[in-house]
Amino acid sequence: MTLSQTYKQVRQQSLDFCKHLQVEDFAIQVVKFASPPKWHLAHTTWFFETFILIPNVKNYAYFNSNFNFLFNSYYNNVGDRVLQANRGNMSRPTTNEIFAYRDYVDEKMQEFLRDLTDKKIIDLVILGLNHEQQHQELLITDVKYMFGHNPIFPVLHEDFNLVNVKNTNLESSNINGGIYEIGYQGNEFCYDNELGVHKVYIDDFEINNYLVTNGDYIQFMEAGGYADFNLWLDEGWSWVNNNQINAPMYWHKIEDEWYYYTLSGLQKVDTEAILSHINYYEANAFAEWKGMRLPTEFEWEIAAQQLDWGKRWEWTNSAYLPYPKFKKENGAVGEYNGKFMSNKMVLRGASVATSKNHSRATYRNFFNPLERWQFTGIRLAK
Amino acid sequence: MTLSQTYKQVRQQSLDFCKHLQVEDFAIQVVKFASPPKWHLAHTTWFFETFILIPNVKNYAYFNSNFNFLFNSYYNNVGDRVLQANRGNMSRPTTNEIFAYRDYVDEKMQEFLRDLTDKKIIDLVILGLNHEQQHQELLITDVKYMFGHNPIFPVLHEDFNLVNVKNTNLESSNINGGIYEIGYQGNEFCYDNELGVHKVYIDDFEINNYLVTNGDYIQFMEAGGYADFNLWLDEGWSWVNNNQINAPMYWHKIEDEWYYYTLSGLQKVDTEAILSHINYYEANAFAEWKGMRLPTEFEWEIAAQQLDWGKRWEWTNSAYLPYPKFKKENGAVGEYNGKFMSNKMVLRGASVATSKNHSRATYRNFFNPLERWQFTGIRLAK
Amino acid sequence: MTLSQTYKQVRQQSLDFCKHLQVEDFAIQVVKFASPPKWHLAHTTWFFETFILIPNVKNYAYFNSNFNFLFNSYYNNVGDRVLQANRGNMSRPTTNEIFAYRDYVDEKMQEFLRDLTDKKIIDLVILGLNHEQQHQELLITDVKYMFGHNPIFPVLHEDFNLVNVKNTNLESSNINGGIYEIGYQGNEFCYDNELGVHKVYIDDFEINNYLVTNGDYIQFMEAGGYADFNLWLDEGWSWVNNNQINAPMYWHKIEDEWYYYTLSGLQKVDTEAILSHINYYEANAFAEWKGMRLPTEFEWEIAAQQLDWGKRWEWTNSAYLPYPKFKKENGAVGEYNGKFMSNKMVLRGASVATSKNHSRATYRNFFNPLERWQFTGIRLAK
Amino acid sequence: MTLSQTYKQVRQQSLDFCKHLQVEDFAIQVVKFASPPKWHLAHTTWFFETFILIPNVKNYAYFNSNFNFLFNSYYNNVGDRVLQANRGNMSRPTTNEIFAYRDYVDEKMQEFLRDLTDKKIIDLVILGLNHEQQHQELLITDVKYMFGHNPIFPVLHEDFNLVNVKNTNLESSNINGGIYEIGYQGNEFCYDNELGVHKVYIDDFEINNYLVTNGDYIQFMEAGGYADFNLWLDEGWSWVNNNQINAPMYWHKIEDEWYYYTLSGLQKVDTEAILSHINYYEANAFAEWKGMRLPTEFEWEIAAQQLDWGKRWEWTNSAYLPYPKFKKENGAVGEYNGKFMSNKMVLRGASVATSKNHSRATYRNFFNPLERWQFTGIRLAK
Repeated sequence: MTLSQTYKQVRQQSLDFCKHLQVEDFAIQVVKFASPPKWHLAHTTWFFETFILIPNVKNYAYFNSNFNFLFNSYYNNVGDRVLQANRGNMSRPTTNEIFAYRDYVDEKMQEFLRDLTDKKIIDLVILGLNHEQQHQELLITDVKYMFGHNPIFPVLHEDFNLVNVKNTNLESSNINGGIYEIGYQGNEFCYDNELGVHKVYIDDFEINNYLVTNGDYIQFMEAGGYADFNLWLDEGWSWVNNNQINAPMYWHKIEDEWYYYTLSGLQKVDTEAILSHINYYEANAFAEWKGMRLPTEFEWEIAAQQLDWGKRWEWTNSAYLPYPKFKKENGAVGEYNGKFMSNKMVLRGASVATSKNHSRATYRNFFNPLERWQFTGIRLAK
Repeated sequence: MTLSQTYKQVRQQSLDFCKHLQVEDFAIQVVKFASPPKWHLAHTTWFFETFILIPNVKNYAYFNSNFNFLFNSYYNNVGDRVLQANRGNMSRPTTNEIFAYRDYVDEKMQEFLRDLTDKKIIDLVILGLNHEQQHQELLITDVKYMFGHNPIFPVLHEDFNLVNVKNTNLESSNINGGIYEIGYQGNEFCYDNELGVHKVYIDDFEINNYLVTNGDYIQFMEAGGYADFNLWLDEGWSWVNNNQINAPMYWHKIEDEWYYYTLSGLQKVDTEAILSHINYYEANAFAEWKGMRLPTEFEWEIAAQQLDWGKRWEWTNSAYLPYPKFKKENGAVGEYNGKFMSNKMVLRGASVATSKNHSRATYRNFFNPLERWQFTGIRLAK
Repeated sequence: MTLSQTYKQVRQQSLDFCKHLQVEDFAIQVVKFASPPKWHLAHTTWFFETFILIPNVKNYAYFNSNFNFLFNSYYNNVGDRVLQANRGNMSRPTTNEIFAYRDYVDEKMQEFLRDLTDKKIIDLVILGLNHEQQHQELLITDVKYMFGHNPIFPVLHEDFNLVNVKNTNLESSNINGGIYEIGYQGNEFCYDNELGVHKVYIDDFEINNYLVTNGDYIQFMEAGGYADFNLWLDEGWSWVNNNQINAPMYWHKIEDEWYYYTLSGLQKVDTEAILSHINYYEANAFAEWKGMRLPTEFEWEIAAQQLDWGKRWEWTNSAYLPYPKFKKENGAVGEYNGKFMSNKMVLRGASVATSKNHSRATYRNFFNPLERWQFTGIRLAK
Repeated sequence: MTLSQTYKQVRQQSLDFCKHLQVEDFAIQVVKFASPPKWHLAHTTWFFETFILIPNVKNYAYFNSNFNFLFNSYYNNVGDRVLQANRGNMSRPTTNEIFAYRDYVDEKMQEFLRDLTDKKIIDLVILGLNHEQQHQELLITDVKYMFGHNPIFPVLHEDFNLVNVKNTNLESSNINGGIYEIGYQGNEFCYDNELGVHKVYIDDFEINNYLVTNGDYIQFMEAGGYADFNLWLDEGWSWVNNNQINAPMYWHKIEDEWYYYTLSGLQKVDTEAILSHINYYEANAFAEWKGMRLPTEFEWEIAAQQLDWGKRWEWTNSAYLPYPKFKKENGAVGEYNGKFMSNKMVLRGASVATSKNHSRATYRNFFNPLERWQFTGIRLAK
C-alpha cells in the first residue's frame, strides 16, 4: 500500500466511528481528560497541517489561522493553546467546519504526498498517522465516558459492546531467567520511547496466558477486597475512600445484580468476559489478594510471544521512565512522549478499541495509575 | 388575547431566538450558572408538563419519563435532579428530541387550555409563561457568556449588538421623604416576592434619571478605581485581587484601546452607551468614587415613574429579603423565590434582553453580588 | 474612672482570661476565622501602637519594627500584612515576647495618656479599648473552637461552662406599628455603623421575651428539621447536605444521648438552657418550622427595653447594610466596619462571652450567615 | 554497646535537637507534610508503646489511652487516627505531657529490655530505633520549614547552618557495564525494601564524584532554566508555572543578590556550597540542561564506594518500586514501606540532617517528586 493510500485509509477510519454520533455528541467534554470528538478530529488534522504542510508547502494557505491555537494539544514549541479542560467550552467552530477542515487538509496532503521522497518528512507523516490512530482509540473511550456518565445511558450501536471478550488460552508460561534484549528491533514504525535496544537481567518467572475475568473480580469484591487496606497501596486506599469506590468504572448494582454500561447500553455483567476499566491500584490490590503480582514491562515483553494479548491494556508493575539509550528529538516532536515520564505506569498489549495495525510487543502505553476509562485489564505473574 | 394565544406567542418567542444557533450551541455549558440552550428549552417545557399536565390531565402519557429527572432545575419537592453543573454533560437527549418534546407538550397544553376555567390552574399557567420569559433572558445571556468565552468570538447576528443603548434623560429627580407604599397593587400577574403592600419611611433623596455610561466608567478605571481599596467592600476587593479584575466582563484591551464582546462580535467600546456587565461590588465602588451611592430598592420603586428605565438591570443597595407580609406557597411553587433570600442583592428595572411584557416597577430581580453576566448597570443616588 | 484607669482595666481583662491557657494554646490556629490567642494579644496592642503612639509620640521607638506587618489584621491603609489563614504558622515571636510587647506599649500609653486632652485622640483611644473588648470575646470563642475540635476535649476551667444560662421571662410583647427612630442617640462611645439617627416605619408585631432553648431545638431535630428542605433557605440546605449537619456546633450524640463541648469539658445537653452555636440558616429554619420568623434589627431595637437580652447574640432577619446617613471615616479607621457590609446578617444583643460594658441596644454585630462559633441564639417574632 | 544503651542514646538524640526550641515551636504545623515537633516526639514513643510494650508486657498500664489514637501516623492495622493535616490543631497534650510520656515509656522499655532475648522482638526494637532516627531528620527539616516560612526568619542556632557543605572530590568515575548484585547483604539492620539480593544488568556509565553546587545552579537559572519548557517534564513544567517557581526552596532575591534561609538565619548564598532543596523536576531539568542525566538507583549503588556521598539526598531516575523478591510483612509493620510504592522517586545517599549511624549504600529513601523540604541535591551521570 502506498503512503497516500495508507493516509486515506487511516483518515477514513476516524470518520467511520463518527457515523454513529449525533451533532451534539461531537461538542461535549464531560471531564478534563476526555476531549470532545470534534476536537480529536480537528487536532489530528492540525498535526498534519502544522508539522507537514506549513513547513514544507510553499505559500501554504491556512484553512483558518485560529485553528493553530485552538487545536494544539500540548506542544509548547508550537505556541499558546486552549487549556485541556476548556476544549468542551467551544461550540464553534462547528463539526461541519471541522469536517471541511479535514477535507481541505486531506486534499493538500494528497497533493503533497504525490511527490514526497524526503525520508525525514515521510517519517513525520507516518508519525502523524500513528498519532491519528491513537486518537481513534481515545475517540471511542471518550465517547464511552460521555455516554456512560449520562443518566439515560445512550446506546451508540447495538453491535458495539466491546466488553464481552473471552480468554482463549487458560495456561501459564514459565520463563527462564537470564539476560534479554528489550526494545524495538524491526524496520517499521515505532515510537521513540521503544528505541535503544538494551539488555536487562530477569529472574525466572511464571506468567498467566490469560487475563482476569469479571467473575474473578467479583470474587475479590465479595471477599471484601475494597475494604481491606492491607491489599492496597497508600494512594490507592485514599482514592477508594475519598471516592467511595466499590466496583470497576461503569458498573452499577441494580436490585442486587451487577450491570455495566457498554456502548450497546446497560447490560448484565458477563462473568466469563475479561475484566476492564480498572486502574493500577485496583490491579495491584487484586494481585495482592491472589498472592501474585503484576508482571514488569520487561517480563511482559519477553513473554509476549507466548501470550494471548490484544484485548485489554495490561497494567504492568513498571513506572514509565526512559530506556537507558532514550534520546528526545529536538523541537515539538520531542514533546511527543518524553515529557510524560513521571508518575505514570506502563501498560502493555492493546485493547479492543486500539486501531488495527497499531500494536506490537514493544509498544509502551502509559497512564496515570488512577485512570480507568481505557479498556484496562489484569494479567498475573509470580 | 386568550390564554391559549398568549401561550403560543410566549412559547414561540423562545424558539425565535434559537434560530441563529447551530446545533452545537444548544448543548454546551461553559460555567455552572449558565445552562445549555437545550436545557432551557426543555426545562420550561418540563414546568408545564410537571405542574399542569401531570396533575390535571387524566391518564397523561409522559413524553419520556426520564425527563422529569433530567430537566428539574431546583425543585426539591419534585424529586431528584441532575446537578446544575452537569447540565452540559448530556449530549442526549438531542436538540431535535427536545423540539419534539416541546411540540408534544404544546399540543397537550393547547388541548388542555381549551376548556380550562379553574382560576388556580390558570394562575399556574401564567406563572409558567412568566417562568419561560425569565428563561428567554437567560438564553440570551448564557449564549453571550458561551460565545464571549470562545477565543474566536463568534457572531450570533450582525444586528443584535444589545449594548449600544443610550440615555435619553440627563436630569436628576428630587424626591420628598415620608411614608410610601411598596409592593404590587395591580390585578395582573406578579411574583409572590412583590406581594404584601406595606409602608416604608424614606428620607429626602435625589436620584439620577440616567445610568452610568461606558465613558464614565473608563474615567473611574483611568483614575485607578480598581487599585484603590478604599473604594471597595471587603469581599469585592478580594474578588478584584484574586481574579485580577481591571474592567467589566467582556472587555478586552487591544493595542491600547478598549473593545467588548457583543453578540455582533468584538467591537470598540462605545463611550456614550450605557455601561453593562458589572457586578454589585463594581457598582458600589463606582458610586463611592463619585461620592454618591446606589439607591435602595424602595427609593427606586418610589422614583420609578420619573426614571428612564428598562435597558439595564440596576443594582440597588438592598439585600434580597422577604417583605414583611411575604407568604411562601406550599409545595414546589413555594420554592420559586423564597428560598433564595440570602446573600443576594436586589436589582430593579429590566434589561435589553428582558422579554417583552415582562417588566414592571415592582419587579424584584436578585443575583449574587459577584455576578456580571446579566446586562447590569448603575444608577446613582444621594 | 479616668481614661488611664479604664485603659488599665480593659487591658488587664485580656490577660485575666489567658491565665488558664498553656503556652501551646496561645500559638495555634485551627481554622481561618479563629486566630491564635497570642495574635489577639499582639494585634490589640498593635492597634494602640499604630494609631496612637506612632503618629503622636515624637521619636517613638518601636518595640519591634516587624510587628506592624505581623499584627495588622485587615487595614489596607496601614500596609501589607500576614494573611489571616497564616496567623497560626508563626511560632515566633513567642508568647513571652508578646507579653513584653504589651508591657512596653502599656507603659508608653500610660505616659501618653497623662497629658492627653485632644478630643479626637481620646476618641481613638476609646475606640482602641472597645476594639480590645471585641477581641476579648473572640479570645473566648476561638479557644472554645480550638478545644472543641481537639479529640481529647480539654477542660479550660471547671467553673466556666458558659452555656447553661436560662430564660427569666417567658412572656411575649406586642409592639404597636408606626414610625420609630433607630440609631445611637447617647453621648458615650458607639461604633460608626450605629450612627445617623433615622426613622423607620414598622407594622404591629409580637416578639418573645425569651430565647429558644436546647429542649425546643431538640424537638425541631426530632421532628426531622434537618431533613425537610421546605424549611431551609437554598444556601442553608446546601450547607446542611454538603457538611452532613444534624445538630448545633459542639453537639455529639453518644450512646443515644446528646452532649456538648463546653469550656468545662463535654457535658450532657441541658434542655432548659438557652440554645447556642447555631447559624442564621438554622435560626431561620427553626423559625419556619415554628410558623414564626426572626425579628428585623429595627423591631429588635424598638422592643429592646422589654426584652431579656444579653446572653446570646441573636440572629435578626436584617442584612448588614449602611444606615441611610452612614459616613465612612477617612483612612484606616474607616475600614473598621463599613467595608464588611455585604453578605453578612445583623445580630443584636450580646453574649455571655461579651466583655462587660460592651453592650447596648443599638449595637450592630454582624457575621457571615454560615458561622456558628459565636454564642448565637434565636428569638422569635411574628 | 548493648541494646539498652543504644536505646538510651538514640532516644536522647531526639531531645538534644529540641533544646533550642521554644514551647510554641513544638506545637505548630505549617503544612500538611511537616508535623509539629511534639508530634514527632510522641509518635516515636507511641511506636515503642504500641508495638513492643502493649503486646509483650503483661498488664501494661497505658500512660494515656487517648494517645494510641492521637499519635498513630499511618498504620491502618492499629486503628483510627488523627488526619495528618490536623496534627497541628492540638495544643493539648502539651509538650511537657509528651516529655512525661517519653519518660514513662523509656522507663518501661528499659525494664523490658533487661531480660529481652526474643530475636523477633529485638528486631522490632531496632526497627523502632531506626524509625526514631528517621523522625530525627524530619524534626530538623520540619522546623526548618516552619522557620523558613515565618516572615521574621528565626535563628535556631548560630552554628547550625547545615547548608555550607563543599565537595571534596571533583573527579568522575567510569563504571563498566555487566551484571551486578543489588540489595543489602550484611548482618546489621536494614529496611525490608532493601532486601532480596538480585541481579541487574547495567551498561557502561560515567558518574560524577561530586554534587552540583549553588554556583552551578545559578548558571542554570541565569541561562533561563526555569523558563525553557524543553528542559522540563510535563508535570514539572506545570508546577513551575502554577507556583511561579524561579529558585530552590528558601531562596530569596534581595537587592539583586541571592540569599537563603538557613537554621542560622538568612544568609548570602554560598556559590561553592552544594545545592540543596530542589525537587526531582528541578534535578531533572538541570541535568537535561547540562546534557547529562540523573543516575538510576542501581548505578548509584554500584558506584557508591567511589563516591563522596552523605551530605545530600540525591534524586535518582528510579521510581520507588518493589525489588523482585520484596516481601511485605504481615500486620502493621508491613505498612512501614511497601504501601508507598507508587508515584515516588528513589533518593540515595544521606543528608547533613540524617542521624548518625543511619546511612548505608543500599538505603532507599523515597519522596514525592514535587517535594523540596528535605536536603536534596543533584549528582549527574551519563
